[in-house]
Amino acid sequence: MIIVLKKSATEEEIEHVSEKIKSLGLSVHISKGEERTLIGAIGDEAKLAETPLEALPGVEKVMPIVKPYKLVSKEMSDGPTIIDINGVKVGGNKIQVIAGPCSVETQDLLTDCAKKVKESGATLLRGGAFKPRTSPYAFQGLGEEGLKYLKKASEETGLPVVTELMDPRDMDLICEYADVIQIGARNMQNFRLLMEVGKTKKAVLLKRGMASTVKEFLMSAEYIASQGNTNIILCERGMRTFETSVRNILDYSAVPVLKEETHLPVFIDPSHAAGRWDFVPALSKAAVAVGADGLLIEVHSDPENALCDGAQSLKPTKFSTLMGELAKIAEAVGRTI
Amino acid sequence: MIIVLKKSATEEEIEHVSEKIKSLGLSVHISKGEERTLIGAIGDEAKLAETPLEALPGVEKVMPIVKPYKLVSKEMSDGPTIIDINGVKVGGNKIQVIAGPCSVETQDLLTDCAKKVKESGATLLRGGAFKPRTSPYAFQGLGEEGLKYLKKASEETGLPVVTELMDPRDMDLICEYADVIQIGARNMQNFRLLMEVGKTKKAVLLKRGMASTVKEFLMSAEYIASQGNTNIILCERGMRTFETSVRNILDYSAVPVLKEETHLPVFIDPSHAAGRWDFVPALSKAAVAVGADGLLIEVHSDPENALCDGAQSLKPTKFSTLMGELAKIAEAVGRTI
Amino acid sequence: MIIVLKKSATEEEIEHVSEKIKSLGLSVHISKGEERTLIGAIGDEAKLAETPLEALPGVEKVMPIVKPYKLVSKEMSDGPTIIDINGVKVGGNKIQVIAGPCSVETQDLLTDCAKKVKESGATLLRGGAFKPRTSPYAFQGLGEEGLKYLKKASEETGLPVVTELMDPRDMDLICEYADVIQIGARNMQNFRLLMEVGKTKKAVLLKRGMASTVKEFLMSAEYIASQGNTNIILCERGMRTFETSVRNILDYSAVPVLKEETHLPVFIDPSHAAGRWDFVPALSKAAVAVGADGLLIEVHSDPENALCDGAQSLKPTKFSTLMGELAKIAEAVGRTI
Amino acid sequence: MIIVLKKSATEEEIEHVSEKIKSLGLSVHISKGEERTLIGAIGDEAKLAETPLEALPGVEKVMPIVKPYKLVSKEMSDGPTIIDINGVKVGGNKIQVIAGPCSVETQDLLTDCAKKVKESGATLLRGGAFKPRTSPYAFQGLGEEGLKYLKKASEETGLPVVTELMDPRDMDLICEYADVIQIGARNMQNFRLLMEVGKTKKAVLLKRGMASTVKEFLMSAEYIASQGNTNIILCERGMRTFETSVRNILDYSAVPVLKEETHLPVFIDPSHAAGRWDFVPALSKAAVAVGADGLLIEVHSDPENALCDGAQSLKPTKFSTLMGELAKIAEAVGRTI
Repeated sequence: MIIVLKKSATEEEIEHVSEKIKSLGLSVHISKGEERTLIGAIGDEAKLAETPLEALPGVEKVMPIVKPYKLVSKEMSDGPTIIDINGVKVGGNKIQVIAGPCSVETQDLLTDCAKKVKESGATLLRGGAFKPRTSPYAFQGLGEEGLKYLKKASEETGLPVVTELMDPRDMDLICEYADVIQIGARNMQNFRLLMEVGKTKKAVLLKRGMASTVKEFLMSAEYIASQGNTNIILCERGMRTFETSVRNILDYSAVPVLKEETHLPVFIDPSHAAGRWDFVPALSKAAVAVGADGLLIEVHSDPENALCDGAQSLKPTKFSTLMGELAKIAEAVGRTI
Repeated sequence: MIIVLKKSATEEEIEHVSEKIKSLGLSVHISKGEERTLIGAIGDEAKLAETPLEALPGVEKVMPIVKPYKLVSKEMSDGPTIIDINGVKVGGNKIQVIAGPCSVETQDLLTDCAKKVKESGATLLRGGAFKPRTSPYAFQGLGEEGLKYLKKASEETGLPVVTELMDPRDMDLICEYADVIQIGARNMQNFRLLMEVGKTKKAVLLKRGMASTVKEFLMSAEYIASQGNTNIILCERGMRTFETSVRNILDYSAVPVLKEETHLPVFIDPSHAAGRWDFVPALSKAAVAVGADGLLIEVHSDPENALCDGAQSLKPTKFSTLMGELAKIAEAVGRTI
Repeated sequence: MIIVLKKSATEEEIEHVSEKIKSLGLSVHISKGEERTLIGAIGDEAKLAETPLEALPGVEKVMPIVKPYKLVSKEMSDGPTIIDINGVKVGGNKIQVIAGPCSVETQDLLTDCAKKVKESGATLLRGGAFKPRTSPYAFQGLGEEGLKYLKKASEETGLPVVTELMDPRDMDLICEYADVIQIGARNMQNFRLLMEVGKTKKAVLLKRGMASTVKEFLMSAEYIASQGNTNIILCERGMRTFETSVRNILDYSAVPVLKEETHLPVFIDPSHAAGRWDFVPALSKAAVAVGADGLLIEVHSDPENALCDGAQSLKPTKFSTLMGELAKIAEAVGRTI
Repeated sequence: MIIVLKKSATEEEIEHVSEKIKSLGLSVHISKGEERTLIGAIGDEAKLAETPLEALPGVEKVMPIVKPYKLVSKEMSDGPTIIDINGVKVGGNKIQVIAGPCSVETQDLLTDCAKKVKESGATLLRGGAFKPRTSPYAFQGLGEEGLKYLKKASEETGLPVVTELMDPRDMDLICEYADVIQIGARNMQNFRLLMEVGKTKKAVLLKRGMASTVKEFLMSAEYIASQGNTNIILCERGMRTFETSVRNILDYSAVPVLKEETHLPVFIDPSHAAGRWDFVPALSKAAVAVGADGLLIEVHSDPENALCDGAQSLKPTKFSTLMGELAKIAEAVGRTI
């Protein structure tokens, strides 16, 4: 950690900062330049994380050197993490596609959808049984009944199930039915929930918060990893900005950035970002081209009557066409889908 | 709700949209203008909320007329809500100040701080026992022990206690010790937590998410109200933006906006927004001037050794000076503090 | 235009708003719903644009129906605009690549770079002679000398020249040397400059401002078109957000959005958005996949010694490799490059 | 400047970075820590500004120590700059208020408005003759005729004139009529315009761009100062964010931040930020309380018929009431208005 002192900093202030650092077990290197004095704190930087050095008299700014995440950082791994979900390998050369309706509604609709997306090449089935909705008056999901429908659709198609956990009290229930536990964007910093899923070995699909930095995203993954579970799939789903032509702006650069920082696989969810089904194909193609390891796409057999997010759901025939187009791009970048 | 059709919309498409609306029990008024055809949906707009009208063929955009929140809207109340917390009246002419350390550390430090902030005019005591931290390796709070310290400090000073709830499983515990339950910014859309605090009659301090709109903020309050609890204090604590000179940018305009939309009291938290104690006085003065009903200010007897957020904590003497300055501004706007 | 009245609006207020609209030559349709009264203003909406209807007593909000741009809107054209720049057709099936250094430095470096990017498949040459720099102490470009170098490099390679105009007083000079006039992101709302380039027939490369909406972007294009010049290439170059891992976040969804709204060609500039050369390949691939009509890529033979933006410039060999990769993706989406 | 090397950096890479720094005339201090090697570049940091150190092999990040602005920094001045505009002292204890219509329309309206705002305590008169409008079809201002009206209103009231410059070609014209030259938010990084006003001694009112950082704001002021003119008034006018309840969010924390960084006076413009007249009083009070040196408030005798921004203009009577309220807050913070 480098501490930059104000031009006006006194010897006494420099001494005070130095003593503070030493009292925490680090050593100090002072460098007096033409413009500013710098103090380098040498040793375990984490010990300084809780100390408000920037509030000490004479301090202008504090610059950390070491990244705050460890277990999820690339340096901790020999190569990319590949997660095996009932035989579906996430993080390898093959791009995996999670498809299905926003929320589970009936057994028939779900099983029908599952069969169709499987035929088109999807390898995992999504569907919400517990839905985080902005309005308390909106449909909140079918709960356990929805989970049962998912299980049945999974049994009929062989597709592993991805579904969202919203409350630590539902943990056992979700684990009974799901193969991948989704943590939604609004819960990316629900630290208790993160710790809870960190205690299992189930794969976790962690969505990036709408206003979270890549660094915070990795720190949330670190929460899960710190409890012993590194089966984490990171999922970019769009940032909140001033633009209103789409719901959120996908941060495609997060893919190469994350590939540089972490060994975990990275997915993109074009459906929630766009908020409109007709933009999903273009955004999905870009996701494959930029290097994503997978996609999360909403598909519904009857979007007009969907109970949730119908506007952004593709019909199965359009999804099928899209998968054909994505296959060509995957090939162009040396991958399969 | 007004549905604007594309210039290219066919009669068939217009008919299809109309039928969809009628099937949900609303009536339809079609208006063909020079540039666009509009369909007005007349009746209970809430019934349309789940229907993806914007995804129907021929539709250009959908414009809601009615606001999605009801119980927290100004129209539902004769006047401003005044919440009585053990005799401290929040929402009236007197501006209430919640003060105390970021996290509870020891009984002595806390009681000492509580006594001092009370002397200076604070009327509620804050302190975190469960702390949401970006890093899993940071101090996470003392848990129940911290709650006991808070209770004791409260008994010695008479100041009611404000403390954060992070997990629905801690609800009973928090209720036993706290007078006001805080929902943190990161949990503003933790809908399960909102519903949980909605089931008590305890006052709730609901912090606005860093990237949440005023409308979403009110919808989160509506979640709480929908369960029967309207003892809600709204608290603006800063927005996430591109600016890096402070941690977050306070949305002062949210105060007049909220005063127009809702009957609930509105507080401002300058400490978390600034991230630096030396900006807290200026930001607090602006909060009183803009019309806030209260402030949430971090005070710590020994900020240099605080286990959390020391950089933004005022020392008790500085807090005392600030309270004197705020009193003058309160008087200038016709209020007390 | 639809005017939504407050629940509390009086008959007198409704009458006042109606009279105001009629006085501007539009007719009025009043619709009294259960929750709100609406006034529809029927006729030429543009006449209302200057009238502060939202400030009239009793008005809750004003919702425009018609889009404010005309000449650049898709409705004004039979098909996509194809701009012919000395034989290079922008906006057609072939994706065009503008390449070259950030700023012109020496004749040799520039000509060398031009030859190499041409060999790799670039069809237009970029280079700044007038540079907008954040610091007054940074290199500001070679001025006319730089333009001469560009001209010579163009003559030797046959590549048309793209260069930036910063000041209306340089208009004649730029026109003498350039084939495409670039308007930088910081000047997207320099309305005088827009009007100036609108008066020629030269092609204009209009970059989107870092915090401009798609609608504002199109309004700036409309400024140029309003003066008679519709040879406009739109260029997305990244948004300003809270994220710091890259300089700006590219709005890839702007490509399908713009394709729906306008007949003008749409380019993407991955170099300025990334701020780092090593992310340029991934971002370029996504640009081709999402449907962009062209790319703007910085290439420099000796990035380490570049006078400007060396960190984001590709070396010619890396550019050559990238062009090969992009060709495969172009083919996958049914285009050439 | 501190250069942090990657964990994987080789001796050769460290040597290469060091040589690069030395070749520019700085000396080097290498520090090998447990986690990372750091290189400190000692000497004139400005010499490194153009060098893409972050693109050199083995470099992880580059951290500048010294701020890039000099002339406008607090260190360059003994105390706050006080600008004398025909006897009106900006930057001292008295808070100065610039008031008047958004655009100049008729001599009568303007003179009437000028007299009224003067009576209420305004000390400078604003009015636009050249208007930057988002739409090319909107009213663009009266041009020189408007400037003549301003001059006349100024002569009748004694109020100095503040008006906007949009084009370097209008410089002489504006200088003939104006006492303070306004640079609008959209032109904050129109560097040619900044250099042009830097060459006079006229006071400049520089508005902060809607998506500009405080640092960029100061760099734009530095552009003006670098040409010899330090008569600069900084004006915060709101940030672009995701929130839609007001037009822009005022960054009140910019006032204490700027007071720490620069000797220049700082104003706030609540009218453009709010976009609605009824929020202007609350936002103005907060501006005085937070420590602003002045305000820019739009006042129009007949807002309903204003040709520009009528919705955000106060009527003279409301402005008069507001000035009375502001006087009390000014007194509470030890200032006059």
